[in-house]
Amino acid sequence: MRLVTQVSEVHEFIDEYRVQKSTVGLVPTMGFLHEGHTSLMQRAGNENDKTIVTIFVNPLQFAEGEDLSSYPQNLEKDISECEAIGIDLLFVPSSEEMYSQPILTSVQIDQLMNTIEGASRPTHFSGVATVVAKLFNIVGPCNAYFGEKDWQQLQVISTMARDLSFRVKVLGCPTVRQPNGLALSSRNAYLSLEERKAATALSRSLQIASENVQAGETSAAVIKSQIVDEITDEALVTLEYVEIVEGNSLITIDQIFEGARILIAAKVGKARLIDNVDPYFGIK
Amino acid sequence: MRLVTQVSEVHEFIDEYRVQKSTVGLVPTMGFLHEGHTSLMQRAGNENDKTIVTIFVNPLQFAEGEDLSSYPQNLEKDISECEAIGIDLLFVPSSEEMYSQPILTSVQIDQLMNTIEGASRPTHFSGVATVVAKLFNIVGPCNAYFGEKDWQQLQVISTMARDLSFRVKVLGCPTVRQPNGLALSSRNAYLSLEERKAATALSRSLQIASENVQAGETSAAVIKSQIVDEITDEALVTLEYVEIVEGNSLITIDQIFEGARILIAAKVGKARLIDNVDPYFGIK
Repeated sequence: MRLVTQVSEVHEFIDEYRVQKSTVGLVPTMGFLHEGHTSLMQRAGNENDKTIVTIFVNPLQFAEGEDLSSYPQNLEKDISECEAIGIDLLFVPSSEEMYSQPILTSVQIDQLMNTIEGASRPTHFSGVATVVAKLFNIVGPCNAYFGEKDWQQLQVISTMARDLSFRVKVLGCPTVRQPNGLALSSRNAYLSLEERKAATALSRSLQIASENVQAGETSAAVIKSQIVDEITDEALVTLEYVEIVEGNSLITIDQIFEGARILIAAKVGKARLIDNVDPYFGIK
Repeated sequence: MRLVTQVSEVHEFIDEYRVQKSTVGLVPTMGFLHEGHTSLMQRAGNENDKTIVTIFVNPLQFAEGEDLSSYPQNLEKDISECEAIGIDLLFVPSSEEMYSQPILTSVQIDQLMNTIEGASRPTHFSGVATVVAKLFNIVGPCNAYFGEKDWQQLQVISTMARDLSFRVKVLGCPTVRQPNGLALSSRNAYLSLEERKAATALSRSLQIASENVQAGETSAAVIKSQIVDEITDEALVTLEYVEIVEGNSLITIDQIFEGARILIAAKVGKARLIDNVDPYFGIK
């Protein structure tokens, strides 16, 4: 594996891959890798000749007061993981390398950016879309892999790639969970043992909702209130929202149908956690 | 020359060029080609192994009430011109090909987009940046050529390319003029013979301003009022604005210095014309 920190070094490798006509898979991350990330890397490795991982905690997608400065990091462990998986190129740029001049440009995605997560984090998805556009341009991948845990992010990036004619296939991969259902997240590092147990209320409520939908309940209001009840029972968890939407357009729906997605966010201790489910599939 | 209308066809040619390690120059146009365009194409041809021209009247950059439906076109003549110059690939997509689904994504450039031209055309530069981002992604050029006549557009695109890490060098090329100084523009087609003569007031006023600056006048206010006077003398020309700015940031300046740019816009008959100059260089 090659570890590089400069855009120009990435270009050198990419140009070599191109001449070899290698297919290139990209897994953009913010580091502190867990099995969610490694599942993306493994899939990228299976589906491409060359796999590139990026680790960059992107300041653009954090608002003031969010956890940019405390975001968990463990670069040495991340490097070993990438080595072990057989990643070809690991790109770990500094903020100065990514934003060498004040950035005036942003990528905006109407309708997808200001709803759900975006309602409480108004600059977040523009920051995500902008840095992913940069990474797509730097790397020029054939395929790019993102976790379904960040469902709204996946829709934002898919839509951006389509609308701006990026030559990349954006691929969503299933959320990886602990045996107790908790979705893996770097931010789980903020949780105490007790909070970690309480946090399973998120996936549990989504699984109960899924079972009810599969049993025939199609009223979004009914399903929503069942989730609210389930989470409210857990004293350490403060629900931020439950949204039931059409999965790609993120438009709120009253009646649940195939293609629907249920998304939740909650505060557990210092951590703000998100989770989501296709109710016809459930938490697996 | 190959003429194609589908993105997938462009990809085929580009992939072939890549394998050959050819450098690729892109000249994006809205067609109705004049010597301003052909000067860009000739330069692209000189500096690259392969030259690609696009002709696309981009609806995104026209506001309601602007001249989208009447924008001059002559595709047959354009094709002959491109053939004659030795263009390798001419891409003429339909609107459906470029925007096969409703586009939700836009590229915004703070500070550069809402000033000068952008003040009266608030959605224009976002439309330009968005379509150019698409064309950069579709073609993946090494170099892209834009006329300095659209000075603000050149700054918007250069900034976008830098900020979003596009692997393309954005190159500005001098405005091509009639012997009487009138900047070539497809929109000159809207002018009567008499209006065409009156329209020379734009370049004449910029040349007088340049001479005064070169003679030592550095007050933007003085230079501005000289331009206003010169243009007001021409009954058929209605001045929209004169702006004196730092050339890259487009920030208004009071004192003229090296790197300044003077930009004007005026209505002449049905045409809205723009022109600009580096006052230390002048209209040549």
